[in-house]
Amino acid sequence: MIDGLVAIVQQSGTVLQARGWMVATAESCTGGLVGHLLTELPGSSSYYQGGVIAYSNEAKRDLLGVPQEMLQTSGAVSEATARAMAEGVRARFDCAVGLSTTGIAGPGGATDTKPVGLVFVAVATPTLTICQRFVFDGDRAANKQESALAALRLLLETV
Amino acid sequence: MIDGLVAIVQQSGTVLQARGWMVATAESCTGGLVGHLLTELPGSSSYYQGGVIAYSNEAKRDLLGVPQEMLQTSGAVSEATARAMAEGVRARFDCAVGLSTTGIAGPGGATDTKPVGLVFVAVATPTLTICQRFVFDGDRAANKQESALAALRLLLETV
Repeated sequence: MIDGLVAIVQQSGTVLQARGWMVATAESCTGGLVGHLLTELPGSSSYYQGGVIAYSNEAKRDLLGVPQEMLQTSGAVSEATARAMAEGVRARFDCAVGLSTTGIAGPGGATDTKPVGLVFVAVATPTLTICQRFVFDGDRAANKQESALAALRLLLETV
Repeated sequence: MIDGLVAIVQQSGTVLQARGWMVATAESCTGGLVGHLLTELPGSSSYYQGGVIAYSNEAKRDLLGVPQEMLQTSGAVSEATARAMAEGVRARFDCAVGLSTTGIAGPGGATDTKPVGLVFVAVATPTLTICQRFVFDGDRAANKQESALAALRLLLETV
């Protein structure tokens, strides 16, 4: 596992189990990396329900319930979409916590207003949804790792 | 990226793009690792649609359409379920190819008839579904990696 993540995943798992909470993931730019990391430790099925890798806009809309209008107006890489993904996967998997990532890992995909490395991560719990914005400056693989780390940190801070 | 997988992912991408085929993933024991690997290379959105991390039986049933009776009779770790997951995700994402993994990464989860390391990977295309059975002897992380590699190899061999 990527160094430094073991402790975060382990602590998150301990807290989630203590609360009796399950988490589900909705990943765009990380492509499954958050789920992979959450399942590296034995016993993860006691707090990890599964997730959706919503790489396409259709998947964000059809599987996570992100409104088509939001995808057109705010865009797939936006705070609104990150929040909708976290809340959507939480509802879809019927569990306490939803965790999402959406961003531009690069090297392509940048627009005039959205640079490579722009990433939103969000967590939705029974009482609140929190979103954080980042602009990472690594290559594609590094940006994916930083995004996954940011999501897992947000999860740990929130639960 | 895990060594030796870059070439397989790159070749798979090239073949899928040449055919105009998109792939979707349905992952149990690999927990998102196959999706992570498929999205490590730039341009992956031109052949990777997304996927479902179906860690729980509920997710296999509700999001991938694996029959409850199959999960009870054959079990989540079985050829029947692997095939149903690949076909289910293919239908769910409305794309040409579905790729699935289901297995016991360990160290827990073994039964009298199903040892740790038992893994089924399956691929479903417009014309056929192929399933392969493995028993890996590594630790949890190694078994996940071997399972993902097996799935990606099967994808490349089939498309």
